[in-house]
Amino acid sequence: MNKTVSFDYSKAAGFLGADELQNFKTITLNAKDTLLSRSGAGNDFLGWIDLPVNYDKEEFDRIKQTAKKIKEDSDVLLVVGIGGSYLGARAAIEFLSHSFYNCLDKSQRKTPQIIFCGNSISSKYIADIKDLLKDKDFSINIISKSGTTTEPAISFRVFKEMLIEKYGKEANKRIYATTDKARGALKSLANEEGYESFIVPDDIGGRFSVLTAVGLLPIAVAGIDIDELMAGAAATKEEVLSKDFEENPSLLYAALRNIFLRKGKNIEVTANYEPSLHYVAEWVKQLFGESEGKDNRGIFPAAVDLTTDLHSMGQYIQDGARIMFETVLDIEKSSTEILLKEEETDTDGMNYLAGKSVDFVNKSAMNGTILAHTDGNVPNLKINIPDISAFSLGSLFYFYEFACGVSGYILGVNPFNQPGVESYKANMFALLGKPGYESQREELIKRLGQ
Amino acid sequence: MNKTVSFDYSKAAGFLGADELQNFKTITLNAKDTLLSRSGAGNDFLGWIDLPVNYDKEEFDRIKQTAKKIKEDSDVLLVVGIGGSYLGARAAIEFLSHSFYNCLDKSQRKTPQIIFCGNSISSKYIADIKDLLKDKDFSINIISKSGTTTEPAISFRVFKEMLIEKYGKEANKRIYATTDKARGALKSLANEEGYESFIVPDDIGGRFSVLTAVGLLPIAVAGIDIDELMAGAAATKEEVLSKDFEENPSLLYAALRNIFLRKGKNIEVTANYEPSLHYVAEWVKQLFGESEGKDNRGIFPAAVDLTTDLHSMGQYIQDGARIMFETVLDIEKSSTEILLKEEETDTDGMNYLAGKSVDFVNKSAMNGTILAHTDGNVPNLKINIPDISAFSLGSLFYFYEFACGVSGYILGVNPFNQPGVESYKANMFALLGKPGYESQREELIKRLGQ
Repeated sequence: MNKTVSFDYSKAAGFLGADELQNFKTITLNAKDTLLSRSGAGNDFLGWIDLPVNYDKEEFDRIKQTAKKIKEDSDVLLVVGIGGSYLGARAAIEFLSHSFYNCLDKSQRKTPQIIFCGNSISSKYIADIKDLLKDKDFSINIISKSGTTTEPAISFRVFKEMLIEKYGKEANKRIYATTDKARGALKSLANEEGYESFIVPDDIGGRFSVLTAVGLLPIAVAGIDIDELMAGAAATKEEVLSKDFEENPSLLYAALRNIFLRKGKNIEVTANYEPSLHYVAEWVKQLFGESEGKDNRGIFPAAVDLTTDLHSMGQYIQDGARIMFETVLDIEKSSTEILLKEEETDTDGMNYLAGKSVDFVNKSAMNGTILAHTDGNVPNLKINIPDISAFSLGSLFYFYEFACGVSGYILGVNPFNQPGVESYKANMFALLGKPGYESQREELIKRLGQ
Repeated sequence: MNKTVSFDYSKAAGFLGADELQNFKTITLNAKDTLLSRSGAGNDFLGWIDLPVNYDKEEFDRIKQTAKKIKEDSDVLLVVGIGGSYLGARAAIEFLSHSFYNCLDKSQRKTPQIIFCGNSISSKYIADIKDLLKDKDFSINIISKSGTTTEPAISFRVFKEMLIEKYGKEANKRIYATTDKARGALKSLANEEGYESFIVPDDIGGRFSVLTAVGLLPIAVAGIDIDELMAGAAATKEEVLSKDFEENPSLLYAALRNIFLRKGKNIEVTANYEPSLHYVAEWVKQLFGESEGKDNRGIFPAAVDLTTDLHSMGQYIQDGARIMFETVLDIEKSSTEILLKEEETDTDGMNYLAGKSVDFVNKSAMNGTILAHTDGNVPNLKINIPDISAFSLGSLFYFYEFACGVSGYILGVNPFNQPGVESYKANMFALLGKPGYESQREELIKRLGQ
């Protein structure tokens, strides 16, 4: 049987009183009950809890069929989405694919380039994608619940036009819409134009949607086994819903992060030792940032790629203001073994490592850093990821989602809304002159001194 | 004449008492004096102050000649370095090049792929670079003051071997060493093997080294005009050394960030609205994180790419714990104009933007967000970057370096050392079994429970 993600807080023991974690058990179990009894704030967004077993099998098969078609007829898949309609797929693809996936020659890659857009409003970025698409066959996966979010809507307009110029009437067969099942602008358009459509469920918020069609279609196009991804999530669901507090990775993690917050550790630094985990950490930042950063509270989520950033943020973590704890993502089994060799002249002094593997050096760096940061008064937690596989990643996604729901209820917020995201939008609409926002417009322009 | 970077704190006025900034003037000018009189801590690392005018012109020409050779004989340049020997070049290349520089067909790019390595200890990453190099002509720029830093030393061993396998005796003509002028392992090796060498000056620390050969060689290979880069830095040097406090961008920025810190704003979020600025922000994080994160003090440097992260970290910034201020990087003039068109049926409701440029939308998002975050109690500062050009970037680099030196002295630390970076290394060496670290080894292994 495949291994699931596990959790290790042994190195943080020195930051906890003898009974401190036990004293936090009731609070944590109550939060878990609030979540599972669906009695807390935001309880109409809990579809993710049973998703790994309860997903729509017909749609899941259709995702695989569609991925097959895209792989056959496209050099590039443009994935148009922002926030939760972007980060999950990117996290999975970057973690599980070649480090230079999009840069390899076609013969080396075998599956389409995956280009994410509609996640910024940069004209340079859009123009550069146009260059990249030159003389290439491409398809579009537009992902938007409403179809009216500004960033993806702009990109979709630009690239849809390019697709129609290239393929004429056939363009519609190269557009895949992941959107609301019944309502909204994108759903209407998909119906009119006959786009193949997939569903963003009503009861799953963006940041919890990676295991719906939102994440699964692009992930499948990259050649990743989505059955394994779901199986990993299902295995961890089984564990974290049933295991006792003392053995439960998600509950322990949720408890400890709140304990550290209450001790004044306002920042969580999620640290990885494998560059391909970079976007997994970005996904984690969204998950916790949006779920907990509200009511003037919450842990500020930050991330570092190590050992890279030990030579940039490392100084601060070791010795700056003591306002953080660190959570390390450890991949237990590396995907490749590279052995270091003896050189005739030992100019660089590295011959003592001859015969050792690069991964042994990496693990030693990780273990040495955990102890150094601990000694520097930064509590260190560790999440063990068995290997670089879809199963492990599915397990990790679910571990985090469940921990986040529980952690948000411990914090006393609604972990499933994101009211703050509207503030910039309202100002932006007013400044853009959108009908209906006239009243704010004048005041904003005055404040800007324009 | 080219415009330099400017600084705007008008939107932060509401967070400052009437005389607060004036009251901070003396402290700030004293810190500037400490820096310029070279009387403060770390004053043997101030070579960067005069660098934009005082650089070695002979070496500068040789960098250009070498870049020309590499462009002619290489499909790929491997840049081997970590920390300050990595981030400056990457920041410049990503800011000033095509968004998909490394992924373009050779015919579209014209200059070599630039691949950074030796900045992690991932065997997967190394193996993937080997794939990428298959059937390609490549060269190596190894950047290391000592030549014994573990991460680059490992990568250099692996890829030097690959280079020798491919080119035999000619391999040495494809290795470029940026290192100490006289001493150290890499300098010795370069002398023995006859590598073309460039200098890491003794009086410039890694994070201040982007305008030395450390940054300039890879930047030049990417086809960027390094004369313009230096000219931009020189223009801002002229300004920030001479302008009065009230008109001085670096001094005002240094003062305000310390004022906010003393009000409990422990985190600075550097925000950009152009994805290509991502690594400039990483460079900023190193610059301030290593310079100020010490003695259990300093501002925690974080960064967001917007509007991307308005849909992830945006909720937290708007409404989470009020422990941060935000510094926006605004590119005043975009490099491309893309006009939005009217569509026949306005399904997505975007027709109100027809005839407007994508950049107008981006600027409206930026301005709307600055006001929204300000209203959410996050003081906003803004750095205006005239355009996407080497001159502007040189100006920005110097603006930040000078502000950092002053800010560090205001904080009361040595801004030019990084003692905390050694802690993980010592532990790592002990765990690796490096001769000389035997005494710590046993205790560390015991603590790890291995």
